[in-house]
Amino acid sequence: MKPSTTLRFAVTGASGFLGRHVVQYCLNNNLECVVSGRNSLAQDSRCRFVALDITHPPPDAFEQLGCPDVLIHLAWNGLPNYHSRQHFERELLHQYRFLQCLIDAGLPKLVVAGTCFEYGLHSGALLEQMPTNPCTAYGLAKDTLRRQLTFLTANTTTTLIWARLFYLWGAGQAASSLYSQLLAAAQRGESVFKMSGGEQLRDYLPVTEAARYLVNLAIHPCAFNLVNLCSGRPIAVRSLVEHWITTHGLAISPQLGCYPYPDYEPLAFWGDASRLQQIFSV
Amino acid sequence: MKPSTTLRFAVTGASGFLGRHVVQYCLNNNLECVVSGRNSLAQDSRCRFVALDITHPPPDAFEQLGCPDVLIHLAWNGLPNYHSRQHFERELLHQYRFLQCLIDAGLPKLVVAGTCFEYGLHSGALLEQMPTNPCTAYGLAKDTLRRQLTFLTANTTTTLIWARLFYLWGAGQAASSLYSQLLAAAQRGESVFKMSGGEQLRDYLPVTEAARYLVNLAIHPCAFNLVNLCSGRPIAVRSLVEHWITTHGLAISPQLGCYPYPDYEPLAFWGDASRLQQIFSV
Repeated sequence: MKPSTTLRFAVTGASGFLGRHVVQYCLNNNLECVVSGRNSLAQDSRCRFVALDITHPPPDAFEQLGCPDVLIHLAWNGLPNYHSRQHFERELLHQYRFLQCLIDAGLPKLVVAGTCFEYGLHSGALLEQMPTNPCTAYGLAKDTLRRQLTFLTANTTTTLIWARLFYLWGAGQAASSLYSQLLAAAQRGESVFKMSGGEQLRDYLPVTEAARYLVNLAIHPCAFNLVNLCSGRPIAVRSLVEHWITTHGLAISPQLGCYPYPDYEPLAFWGDASRLQQIFSV
Repeated sequence: MKPSTTLRFAVTGASGFLGRHVVQYCLNNNLECVVSGRNSLAQDSRCRFVALDITHPPPDAFEQLGCPDVLIHLAWNGLPNYHSRQHFERELLHQYRFLQCLIDAGLPKLVVAGTCFEYGLHSGALLEQMPTNPCTAYGLAKDTLRRQLTFLTANTTTTLIWARLFYLWGAGQAASSLYSQLLAAAQRGESVFKMSGGEQLRDYLPVTEAARYLVNLAIHPCAFNLVNLCSGRPIAVRSLVEHWITTHGLAISPQLGCYPYPDYEPLAFWGDASRLQQIFSV
């Protein structure tokens, strides 16, 4: 592979929460990229925006993306409604056809955002080689796309890296996220923050770290095609909220037990980060 | 449910190998049915044929099938090429949309032919509750359809029964099947039958038994939504060939080791038939 500074990057979903951090990481590291997203981004000489409708990709989508050496593919419609059948009735097909178009055009490397929801109701540490059994429509669609792309790329020169994201938090996150809700409640001057029991164990990664990992998975040769993008450290959600309150100096207290735990997730699960650590310790 | 003799049956894929035996079993048991298939079947007063293009189902497909109480859905395009991406690129979508149309129309019960290829490379006895990890495009498409239909029927009144077929043999099987090849070689007066090493253990069911099971799964209330349709008894392929030679009185001898074993199947796997036995012992 070429030195990273001469690699041609492309990023889809670039105006999303994670996408904006990926683009920022590229810019901070003088990596040129072509980006595409639902909303246009501020133009920068090193970052060219292209309007691309993934649901109806033009035949020259690869050329429009600047014939990239590597695509970091983050675009996905219909979130955060994990239960909508639209994920596998419509989005899956659009995603597959878009990526097939780029693979057919000779894309050398494709890094796709997967999800911990592919695993389904497994508790404890989740390892990449575990069988998947998604229990959400979103998880099923992502899991199926991964399997389809594995078949599709088997006899091509395209390298597929599937990075399973766990929970993220950070600046610019959706208003419905726990992190943004906490900040908003504190800003409104509220003294208590209503939340679930908070005992559930999850794997949370700062979005800036996730962005750094993604770009580096795109740059470096990688011993694995499937990797958890996670911290590897389970944390109780109440501890996480307390941590945010402390580090931001917020004058708010968590009020536990106000909401039930979701029924589509185990009470305790987190990513095994061995592969990720192995990739980046070389 | 109504008594079986007043149930309205429909069968898709009725002109296929298994389909013709299913229709014959219905006729032998005085069950009226509406059938659809690639080729028209001989008309019978108790068996009405309708031409139905599953890839472009008409909005009134349910009515055209006679508003059935139960559909035995066997239709599937593109076999026996298990590796063609058409299975998940095209057939999966057509299948889903066709069945969605019937479920939306209020179909009470749907029995679908699944496949042992959903399991992937698991050796030994395969139990329904094992995680699936298909390694063929065909297995992936069937596995995905099953997951999608599970979501789709979750909040409907349609009962879904997914019957995973293992290996079948019997009259009218495709010319490329082991059974038909053996009979054809014997008929040509050949003295030896070239085959693989024959040591592989498989689960073979006479097609007449599979047809009987399917119709009875359609008739009876069923404690399981997912069931292996299998013998539960592993048999070496060479023993099976020897059995066919003996029972048909063929003057031909197996010549072992002429062909390699397929790489997309374990050397030894068979269905666990506990659920099937439990259903029909009640």
